[in-house]
Amino acid sequence: MERMDENTAKRKRIKLVVAYDGTDYCGWQVQPSGITIEEMLNRELSDLLGEEIRVIGASRTDSGVHSLGNVAVFDTATRIPAEKICYALNQRLPEDIVVQSSCEVPSDFHPRRCYSEKTYEYRILNRRLPMPTLRRYTYFYYRPLQVEKMQQALDYLVGEHDFKSFCSVKTAVEDTVRTILSGKVERTLEDVVIIRITGTGFLYNMVRIIAGTLISVGIGELEPEDMIQILEKRKRSEAGPTAPPQGLTMMGIFYP
Amino acid sequence: MERMDENTAKRKRIKLVVAYDGTDYCGWQVQPSGITIEEMLNRELSDLLGEEIRVIGASRTDSGVHSLGNVAVFDTATRIPAEKICYALNQRLPEDIVVQSSCEVPSDFHPRRCYSEKTYEYRILNRRLPMPTLRRYTYFYYRPLQVEKMQQALDYLVGEHDFKSFCSVKTAVEDTVRTILSGKVERTLEDVVIIRITGTGFLYNMVRIIAGTLISVGIGELEPEDMIQILEKRKRSEAGPTAPPQGLTMMGIFYP
Repeated sequence: MERMDENTAKRKRIKLVVAYDGTDYCGWQVQPSGITIEEMLNRELSDLLGEEIRVIGASRTDSGVHSLGNVAVFDTATRIPAEKICYALNQRLPEDIVVQSSCEVPSDFHPRRCYSEKTYEYRILNRRLPMPTLRRYTYFYYRPLQVEKMQQALDYLVGEHDFKSFCSVKTAVEDTVRTILSGKVERTLEDVVIIRITGTGFLYNMVRIIAGTLISVGIGELEPEDMIQILEKRKRSEAGPTAPPQGLTMMGIFYP
Repeated sequence: MERMDENTAKRKRIKLVVAYDGTDYCGWQVQPSGITIEEMLNRELSDLLGEEIRVIGASRTDSGVHSLGNVAVFDTATRIPAEKICYALNQRLPEDIVVQSSCEVPSDFHPRRCYSEKTYEYRILNRRLPMPTLRRYTYFYYRPLQVEKMQQALDYLVGEHDFKSFCSVKTAVEDTVRTILSGKVERTLEDVVIIRITGTGFLYNMVRIIAGTLISVGIGELEPEDMIQILEKRKRSEAGPTAPPQGLTMMGIFYP
C-alpha cells in the first residue's frame, strides 16, 4: 500500500460567510494602496492556523461597499473543527469584520465558479436633509424619487441580457451577458429607497451603475422604456452615473 | 415716545431639531473631557451669526448616545430667516451632526421646562454573532431574549411612578416621579429587539437602566412581576445594569 502524504491527506476546504462594514477598507481584494478585507482574513487566518492561508472570495466588493454575507474559501490542514474556526477568527478580527459561519465544503467548491445566486441592496436616503445615523450605509439624494418608475425600469433589466452598458469601462471582461433573477424597488418608512437585485453573476460596478441609472429614471431624466435602448447600445456612456459605494451592501450568496 | 433698544427689539428665539451620530462625542453637554454636540452647535452658531450663542438643549444625552431629533433653542439678533439657519449651519457642521429644521418660537419657549413627550429607542442586536453594519447603533447581546416577557415587564412601568430605582446614583435630583406614556418591545426581521419608550420626562440614565432591567427579564433572571418590587424599593441596586450607550437613540420630542 502506498504511503499517503499526511499533509495532503488531511487538507480540507473551509467556507466562510463574512460580514463587514466596508467604510474603512479599500475593498475586498488585496492591493498596494491600503488595507483590504481579503488581506485581513489572510493575515489573521495564517496567524491562527500557523499556515500560509490565501482565501478565494466570491464577490470582490469595491472600496466602501459593505457585506452581510460574502463568501470565501481556503484550504487548511488544521485540526480545529471547521465550525469553530469562525469563533477563533473573530477573536482576532477588528469589530468591522465578523465571520458569520465556517464549515467544511467539497474540495472542488469554488465560490466564483460554482453556480450561485447573489443578492445586493443599494440604499438611497431620499429626503430633504441627511440623517447622520444612516450616512455610512446609504447614499443621500435629496431630489424626490418616483419609486414606481424606478421599478418599471428595473423590470426591463430582469432576465438574461448583455449588460455591457452597465459595466465599468475599467474592466476587460469579454462576455458581458449576465442574468438578473429578480429586482425590487421600495421606499421604507424612513425614506430609504432600497433597490434589491438578485442575479447569477454581476459585472464590475454593475449594481452601482444600475442604481445610478434608476436614480436618473426616478427624477424623470430617463423614462423606464429607455432601458431597452441602453441595453441595446452596449455602451457604458448610455447608462446613468455610477452611484457611490456606501449605498451598496452585498446581502448574501445562495449556492443551491 | 421712548427709544427702543434696537438689539433687544430684534432678538428672536430659534428652535433647532438636531440629529447626530453620538459615537464620536462626549454627549450633549459641554464638558472639559472632550468635544460635545452642544459645544459644536455653540461654536458654529456663534461663528455663523457673529454673536456669542449658547444653546439650551432638551435632552442632555450621554456620551455615545444618538439622536434623530433632539431640540435646542437659542436667542439671536440675526436677520437670516429662521427657516434658513439650518441650511447655513449644516454647511459648517461635520457630517455626524445635521440640523433637521430651524424655526422661530415664542421667547418664553424653554425645551426642558415646557410640557413635552419624548420618545427613546433602545436597540439590542440579539443573535449568535455581531453584525458589523449594526455595531454603532445597537448593543450586541447573544443570549436569546424573550420579547413577550420584556413587554410584560415594561407594561408595569407605564404610568406615573417613582423611578428612583431606575435613576443613576450619580445624580442629585430630588423628585424622581416621572410618567411613561407608552412602552413597546418588538423584534425586527434582522433580530434587533427594539424597546420604544415615550414619556413626559426621564431621569439620568433611566432608559438605559430600564433596558438593562428588561434584558434581565428577557433571559429569565427577573420575572415581569418583579418590576412592582423594584419600583417600590426606590433603590438603584434593585434594578438591572445600565445598558451601554450605543444602543440608545433619542427619536424625537413632541411639544403639543
